Amino acid sequence: MGKAGSMKIAAQRGGKPAALGSAVRQPERRGHSRGNKAPAPASAANAATGDDTEITALSLPATELSPSMQAYFAKCEEKLGFVPNVLKAYGFNSAKLEAFAAMYNDLMLAPSGLSKLEREMIAVAVSSVNRCYYCLVAHGAAVRQLSGDPVLGELMVMNYRAARLSERQRAMLDFAVKLTEQPWAVEEADRERLRRTGFTDADIWDISAVAGFFNMSNRVASATDMRPNSVYHALTR
Amino acid sequence: MGKAGSMKIAAQRGGKPAALGSAVRQPERRGHSRGNKAPAPASAANAATGDDTEITALSLPATELSPSMQAYFAKCEEKLGFVPNVLKAYGFNSAKLEAFAAMYNDLMLAPSGLSKLEREMIAVAVSSVNRCYYCLVAHGAAVRQLSGDPVLGELMVMNYRAARLSERQRAMLDFAVKLTEQPWAVEEADRERLRRTGFTDADIWDISAVAGFFNMSNRVASATDMRPNSVYHALTR
Amino acid sequence: MGKAGSMKIAAQRGGKPAALGSAVRQPERRGHSRGNKAPAPASAANAATGDDTEITALSLPATELSPSMQAYFAKCEEKLGFVPNVLKAYGFNSAKLEAFAAMYNDLMLAPSGLSKLEREMIAVAVSSVNRCYYCLVAHGAAVRQLSGDPVLGELMVMNYRAARLSERQRAMLDFAVKLTEQPWAVEEADRERLRRTGFTDADIWDISAVAGFFNMSNRVASATDMRPNSVYHALTR
Amino acid sequence: MGKAGSMKIAAQRGGKPAALGSAVRQPERRGHSRGNKAPAPASAANAATGDDTEITALSLPATELSPSMQAYFAKCEEKLGFVPNVLKAYGFNSAKLEAFAAMYNDLMLAPSGLSKLEREMIAVAVSSVNRCYYCLVAHGAAVRQLSGDPVLGELMVMNYRAARLSERQRAMLDFAVKLTEQPWAVEEADRERLRRTGFTDADIWDISAVAGFFNMSNRVASATDMRPNSVYHALTR
Amino acid sequence: MGKAGSMKIAAQRGGKPAALGSAVRQPERRGHSRGNKAPAPASAANAATGDDTEITALSLPATELSPSMQAYFAKCEEKLGFVPNVLKAYGFNSAKLEAFAAMYNDLMLAPSGLSKLEREMIAVAVSSVNRCYYCLVAHGAAVRQLSGDPVLGELMVMNYRAARLSERQRAMLDFAVKLTEQPWAVEEADRERLRRTGFTDADIWDISAVAGFFNMSNRVASATDMRPNSVYHALTR
Amino acid sequence: MGKAGSMKIAAQRGGKPAALGSAVRQPERRGHSRGNKAPAPASAANAATGDDTEITALSLPATELSPSMQAYFAKCEEKLGFVPNVLKAYGFNSAKLEAFAAMYNDLMLAPSGLSKLEREMIAVAVSSVNRCYYCLVAHGAAVRQLSGDPVLGELMVMNYRAARLSERQRAMLDFAVKLTEQPWAVEEADRERLRRTGFTDADIWDISAVAGFFNMSNRVASATDMRPNSVYHALTR
Repeated sequence: MGKAGSMKIAAQRGGKPAALGSAVRQPERRGHSRGNKAPAPASAANAATGDDTEITALSLPATELSPSMQAYFAKCEEKLGFVPNVLKAYGFNSAKLEAFAAMYNDLMLAPSGLSKLEREMIAVAVSSVNRCYYCLVAHGAAVRQLSGDPVLGELMVMNYRAARLSERQRAMLDFAVKLTEQPWAVEEADRERLRRTGFTDADIWDISAVAGFFNMSNRVASATDMRPNSVYHALTR
Repeated sequence: MGKAGSMKIAAQRGGKPAALGSAVRQPERRGHSRGNKAPAPASAANAATGDDTEITALSLPATELSPSMQAYFAKCEEKLGFVPNVLKAYGFNSAKLEAFAAMYNDLMLAPSGLSKLEREMIAVAVSSVNRCYYCLVAHGAAVRQLSGDPVLGELMVMNYRAARLSERQRAMLDFAVKLTEQPWAVEEADRERLRRTGFTDADIWDISAVAGFFNMSNRVASATDMRPNSVYHALTR
Repeated sequence: MGKAGSMKIAAQRGGKPAALGSAVRQPERRGHSRGNKAPAPASAANAATGDDTEITALSLPATELSPSMQAYFAKCEEKLGFVPNVLKAYGFNSAKLEAFAAMYNDLMLAPSGLSKLEREMIAVAVSSVNRCYYCLVAHGAAVRQLSGDPVLGELMVMNYRAARLSERQRAMLDFAVKLTEQPWAVEEADRERLRRTGFTDADIWDISAVAGFFNMSNRVASATDMRPNSVYHALTR
Repeated sequence: MGKAGSMKIAAQRGGKPAALGSAVRQPERRGHSRGNKAPAPASAANAATGDDTEITALSLPATELSPSMQAYFAKCEEKLGFVPNVLKAYGFNSAKLEAFAAMYNDLMLAPSGLSKLEREMIAVAVSSVNRCYYCLVAHGAAVRQLSGDPVLGELMVMNYRAARLSERQRAMLDFAVKLTEQPWAVEEADRERLRRTGFTDADIWDISAVAGFFNMSNRVASATDMRPNSVYHALTR
Repeated sequence: MGKAGSMKIAAQRGGKPAALGSAVRQPERRGHSRGNKAPAPASAANAATGDDTEITALSLPATELSPSMQAYFAKCEEKLGFVPNVLKAYGFNSAKLEAFAAMYNDLMLAPSGLSKLEREMIAVAVSSVNRCYYCLVAHGAAVRQLSGDPVLGELMVMNYRAARLSERQRAMLDFAVKLTEQPWAVEEADRERLRRTGFTDADIWDISAVAGFFNMSNRVASATDMRPNSVYHALTR
Repeated sequence: MGKAGSMKIAAQRGGKPAALGSAVRQPERRGHSRGNKAPAPASAANAATGDDTEITALSLPATELSPSMQAYFAKCEEKLGFVPNVLKAYGFNSAKLEAFAAMYNDLMLAPSGLSKLEREMIAVAVSSVNRCYYCLVAHGAAVRQLSGDPVLGELMVMNYRAARLSERQRAMLDFAVKLTEQPWAVEEADRERLRRTGFTDADIWDISAVAGFFNMSNRVASATDMRPNSVYHALTR
């Protein structure tokens, strides 16, 4: 099944994270139990405490995963050693999970004039504008892995303008970031700049669709306080 | 087939639009042929000229629609009298079209604690922030139709704050708009406000997912200069 | 009397609106009576309920209109079938009404190098930046009427950049919108662009004055929650 | 004639400025003659050079002032010792000048629940948001004169939040500035705050109208590079 | 001692301000004593009341100035007739005061390819973006003094784009303001523009360092509600 | 010598970086030599190539370090294994370097009511608003080291609002970020919130001064394209 290749993380560090044993476990509700407003000081506990078990701030009713999604999660476990938390978050509803996974896999993994690394670079540059913790952690790791260059991942998170990019990749990210910040102002001149640096119209669609997708995902993640698997942090450093 | 119900437009005015006869016709490339920079003055021709035939600014290679998408388009023609241009735009690639349609139909038409009208109100309020012409036209029409209230559609397009809304719907739109403008600043207090006005955590997911989806669609439409079917403009006025 | 030509609406649909029988009736105060915070849900009542009778959120002491303003209102009734709500709002004070009407009529109706349609296009593009419900409804209708093109009205409301405009009109609106968003940054280069597309210095004054005027009107309307006559919504659709 | 009282400046320093001898002299066109892009360095010449003779960047055809406007200008000369440049700028067209003067005089000088100083404070706080050189100079001087407090004028120009204001005046300026920056977000709660600090609904109208007026004037001045009479700078320091 | 030259003000008006007799007096805490929220109306008292004695809103424990800083303050009194309030504010801690004074004196007074006036122009243009009352008053006075041109000081405070500047100085201020507003977007093209107008790389460092310094000082002043010595207001008007 | 403790990095990975052998080597000029606009594609070379040798985009004349600064650099080499690039960048001028180091060491290392970790958290949260690559890398590493929590460093870089912070630390960072984004709007209420969570007025000074300092440093780094030592990236991951 090709979809299993959709998981971006090819290895983990330090063995199987305990929290990933039960992929269909529902996230516990944190929102209400945090009502007393007294979290432990950051210096007194690891800031990632709970990230692997409390995936979102929403308490959503558990459902049985569809057989195809059960297989998908099993494939993740097998290949990555864990199921990305975004999938577990969507897992409260198999129809939503399937729609999300289908779109994600087409955009990020299907053949395209953009390399997989370029698509991940767009993902992170867009997520940086939107300051999305989940997506910056998960896709920052993907940029590090696909490029083999930890610094490139940092640059995409911090300020893509500071990276030493080819003219092509700079134009690609400028388009994606303008589309994120001022979608109303994207016009023919912006598309023409992409064509001048060698992108086809199909490539322009893909740049737009990936940038659009992360403008969606960033917001679902921020709206629900989605937490990344803690395993991402140390990958390819 | 339930999906056919996904088309928001139940009727058309003045007979079948000529342009909709061949749903799988590919959009012609406008971008390059407009290079001479001399469009007719707005006062000399209808501003919608070409909207039904030149759907995007991209010239994308034609492909055969998959059988299920052919059936989907036929259903649109039968029920609505036309195929929404966004579907024709995605139709250059059946995999992308299927993923888009699956997610759209789940979000906007599947059972939810939000009414279909409420989901369309979110669609338009978000699209107003992003000033997306395609989505404001198509989903503004949907708000008019589902509410039977033309003025409500206008208010969602122009400034939702000026509408006389219930406390519930105001909170819903405030959340969606904040999530659009400042996703990084959405926190537990925002979710709590929704809970206080009666939304469940599953509803919060749906508000977030719909707001997120239109933050994606707005950008794909703006990036490609997507044009709405002209039939939308006069619906339910 | 030439001023009567100042009303932008040449016809109405479906007979004389009942609410317009008494042009000098003062607006009732809504602000305080709405203190209970329980408006009917949008789906349970027409969103325009009250728009023709509760013109602003302010309760202003009634005064007798001056004879010239009485004649002006009578002319509106005769020619348009109604008195625009902005005039009724200003009508609590004849001196203010006269000053407003004099400036409005000079700017929008007196001879100018800009057509009346162009002045209305500026009005709507500026009001779109400021998201002014009153002005978008009233002047969006004017664009539809003067151009005979409903879509052009929609485009000015939603995103003028998506319209197929002549170079002249695009330059005109770019100037008006920059002047609205960043007045401090308008400089000689901006004026030069207008001159290059054929505008005279007198035209530049008029573009600036119309853009300026709606930056004023948008704020008076928003500050007072001014509501447009409901008859505007369906005009020239 | 009461209107002559509309000029805000009751005295001048160092005798009658030469440039004011001929109130109807038209401004010379600077825009084109500055084409060589070589202004003298600021350190080599007074930065106000030309401000009293080159009033705007537009070259507008001269016309004869109407008799009432001639009388108005004469009154300015008599009472102030000069004609404010904004009046000379509008003077290329008596109808526009009359409309402007009528609205200005009603707003800033007619009886109101706001003192003249308070109206000037709004003028300057609004002009500070819009960074309008003409209005900050002319109305900053008015605040200094009407209050007898040079520092208050500076505070309105620089940051009204740093001034030691009464709760009433702070609420008034907060409203005017929000209306300037985010007119779409002004709602009943904003009006209620004004009512709670003692403003009547007629006062709210006046705050809104003055704030609106300077949002207009700021833009006309910025669009035309309008220069203030140099006499303003030293008044009441 | 060369450092004493760092005080920008070479003269005072009307004799020695009484408040400056004791340079090391600590600022009194205003923050808490203002808890009753009833300041006198602006029109009833001079807006600068207390500025010379209540220097910040913080109540900081008094300490003995180090001997070198005592000498520095004495030099200020001797040469300027007063100690600038920013020095008194920092004076609660001699180490902090010494570090601040050393950096300030190097940046603003040491040899540089930028004139002292140019450095003060940067200071004011940056402080205008940040709307810092203290810095606009103190350094606006410095621009007036160093240029001998009161209008140039006003222009830097209000909108530097309205000043008649040399190409060199305009480029310098554009760089400083972009660096203030969007530091993340400053790139090689911005540095190249400076080089083209004659700045060396050492000059670019100095422009950046001065702009950076006032982005710091503006924030310390705003955070503590620092008040300028009232003597600044009337200097070189 | 206490100052040597100012270097934030207590250890290095994989031995002494080659590039740090000569601390006083001047940065080479990249700006001009990059004129051909053809950097290698990011995927073809490590994105950090040159970061350790080309420290800024400016070509500054080399000078001899003062003896005290030579000792300071030697101490860095001894304790950290390298000299932070910011010090080498300032090293073209010993007076500027000394002033910078004195202020930095006082702010970040001297006794304070804020822990060193808290000061570094402010540094990173401010640098995140300003998207400063140098400061995010260097001070992100410091947060990871001082807290022993790699995730906390990531959170400060990406979005501090997503971190599980104590009420005290959240208030501290909210103040620092507001001061960064809208310094003009910081008022007594903001200071009062800090006091309510236990900060003294001296602490408020320190929060302000640290936030101010990084608003300076961020801009000097961005203006000069300053590059961090590559050794930072992998520290405490």
